[in-house]
Amino acid sequence: MDIREYFEKRIKEINLALDKNLPKSKDMLSMAMRYNVLGAGKRLRPILVIAAAQMLGGKKEKAMLPACAIELVHNFTLIHDDLPCMDNDDYRRGRLTLHKAYNEAVAVLAGDALLNLAFAVLVKESGGANPSIRIKLIEEVSNALGVYGLVGGQAKEISLRGQELDLAVIEDIYMKKTAALISAAVRLGAIIGNANKKELSLLTSYGKHIGIAFQIMDDILEFMSGEAKRKEDELNYVLFMGLEEAKEAAGKNIELAKESLRYFGRRGEILLGIADYIITRDH
Amino acid sequence: MDIREYFEKRIKEINLALDKNLPKSKDMLSMAMRYNVLGAGKRLRPILVIAAAQMLGGKKEKAMLPACAIELVHNFTLIHDDLPCMDNDDYRRGRLTLHKAYNEAVAVLAGDALLNLAFAVLVKESGGANPSIRIKLIEEVSNALGVYGLVGGQAKEISLRGQELDLAVIEDIYMKKTAALISAAVRLGAIIGNANKKELSLLTSYGKHIGIAFQIMDDILEFMSGEAKRKEDELNYVLFMGLEEAKEAAGKNIELAKESLRYFGRRGEILLGIADYIITRDH
Repeated sequence: MDIREYFEKRIKEINLALDKNLPKSKDMLSMAMRYNVLGAGKRLRPILVIAAAQMLGGKKEKAMLPACAIELVHNFTLIHDDLPCMDNDDYRRGRLTLHKAYNEAVAVLAGDALLNLAFAVLVKESGGANPSIRIKLIEEVSNALGVYGLVGGQAKEISLRGQELDLAVIEDIYMKKTAALISAAVRLGAIIGNANKKELSLLTSYGKHIGIAFQIMDDILEFMSGEAKRKEDELNYVLFMGLEEAKEAAGKNIELAKESLRYFGRRGEILLGIADYIITRDH
Repeated sequence: MDIREYFEKRIKEINLALDKNLPKSKDMLSMAMRYNVLGAGKRLRPILVIAAAQMLGGKKEKAMLPACAIELVHNFTLIHDDLPCMDNDDYRRGRLTLHKAYNEAVAVLAGDALLNLAFAVLVKESGGANPSIRIKLIEEVSNALGVYGLVGGQAKEISLRGQELDLAVIEDIYMKKTAALISAAVRLGAIIGNANKKELSLLTSYGKHIGIAFQIMDDILEFMSGEAKRKEDELNYVLFMGLEEAKEAAGKNIELAKESLRYFGRRGEILLGIADYIITRDH
């Protein structure tokens, strides 16, 4: 199967499901949530939920709500990370960030509401997922987000600003800040697809490695665009290690991710395609 | 039973449980979360969870984690509401607000982490609560928080600042901003205590009425302290309706709350005591 075609089909379905699960009223908060979530996005994380579930024979319909939840969580993190007191970014994906399009208060609250909505969506009966499965999905997401995950990673990055870092610290931050949620997306799919222990462990390894590679590629793309130089106080792997070393590290992580898929044979085709996409993408 | 004694005992138990469920590491984020949650607090909402559960014969042990979750959610809302872009408050409960004690970025992230932790705590196996019950508890909390609850209420208040309001709008904001979470606390207890439909409906009414009364009493206490005049851009029932009318409205809501308890007879003793506490408290 052509991976571009697979992406296009899934993106359409995911966008429809997101639209359906976002509030539709015309108050400012709802409009802000819709502006951020429906505006743009590669939908990598929800696609990973669906692809991992499908690889194990799970139904796409069962994966759709958890896929939406992961994308809502992702949007929550982007909105709060862009705030003036955090990374202070005015643009994202070529559009005004939420606090610029609306204001700071709305951006804080829209982020809060999206995080809350993600849990509301996870708890919904999803294509018949039983309560125990839904409990597991919620555990996954809250683990990926907490003090030892995404929010903790962002806090660590901010607290270390201006200080000299070493590679181990950068890798720890990248694992928490980016790889935790990407790996959680793959794990949600694995749980929906009834993965056994070995399958879950292999897919977790796949998720972590593509997550690290994704973040390094982000740094490479930012560096190539010239943006990284203007934001020297922000963490960038290329500024720290050099361009060639960054490319090599991304490539090695993708190789490791692919090795984790070997066990699944031909069934791993889509996830292999996603790994290749991550290292070849140009935005 | 003496209500003060009941409060003191529950507060000790709740503080122990909160301490146990908060992260213990020495990073800035964990410290900030602990500063805010363990610093002070009346613990009204977690006490309501426990008292409602106990009234229906539910065990205190089963109510403790949901009680903690509600208090974590409450702290999340306080931290974000105090931010410079929201109410811009420097002090709360006689201590520096979190963004003053740490900084804005840490305050945003600590709020996020506490909201996430609340869901992580709710999903934990709580004294044997089965997955279906836990799913219901999570639904309650996410409903109380969402666009049609607390976060929506805060957004509405901010979007209407400087505009002329009418009583219906104020009551709608108070229902969402304060009564939704207080009522959710009572409903969590009811669900843990296996309430039937009628009991749940009566306790929901009790929760909404004490919630509205609590917010009006907050306004009265703020007005009496002289603080309300300095913050004329903030909503205050007394500034809008006058002191006598505010006291009357609070009193009427407490009467309605107590009426909802009549059905429970002597079993309603503690919840009646809490209703009286709300209208007689002086801080």
